[in-house]
Amino acid sequence: MAELEMAIGMIIDVFARYAGGEGSAQTLTKGELRALMEKELPGFLETGKDKDAVDKMLKDLDANGDAEVDFSEFMMFVAALTCACHRFFQAGCE
Amino acid sequence: MAELEMAIGMIIDVFARYAGGEGSAQTLTKGELRALMEKELPGFLETGKDKDAVDKMLKDLDANGDAEVDFSEFMMFVAALTCACHRFFQAGCE
Repeated sequence: MAELEMAIGMIIDVFARYAGGEGSAQTLTKGELRALMEKELPGFLETGKDKDAVDKMLKDLDANGDAEVDFSEFMMFVAALTCACHRFFQAGCE
Repeated sequence: MAELEMAIGMIIDVFARYAGGEGSAQTLTKGELRALMEKELPGFLETGKDKDAVDKMLKDLDANGDAEVDFSEFMMFVAALTCACHRFFQAGCE
């Protein structure tokens, strides 16, 4: 399987794995989202370099009001985080 | 490394690998985008089940006018494709 196909499959798999806990299997509750962040993104949270960006993204997710995160909202979060990481790596190369 | 961190790293790596060909290393030319699609997403293109969705996404990317795809535009494409795949898998489970 090509690298990009594999990455797409991994994102779908991670969401399904955590969303399958409490409540609907189609959405992440706040608890599931927190568990996902702590276990799946420990490196990003620990570095602290993008702390403000992650805080802002989480706040944006919460602002949806239903206290649940569906796959599209999760994907937008992953996309924003990936762009932030890409900028971080680019800055390190300049 | 956690699965989601790995997926994020893979997306950044794929973009850098193809963008590093002709022209700017920060953007994909049309040729680089075509090569990336053919080599990195052969499964999605071959199935034909999401052909219209992929065509539409490519058209949207082209509509930006500069004939180059930067990382943010690429990430939005990957995000839309991932959501389409997620819907496809969900439909198969119902």
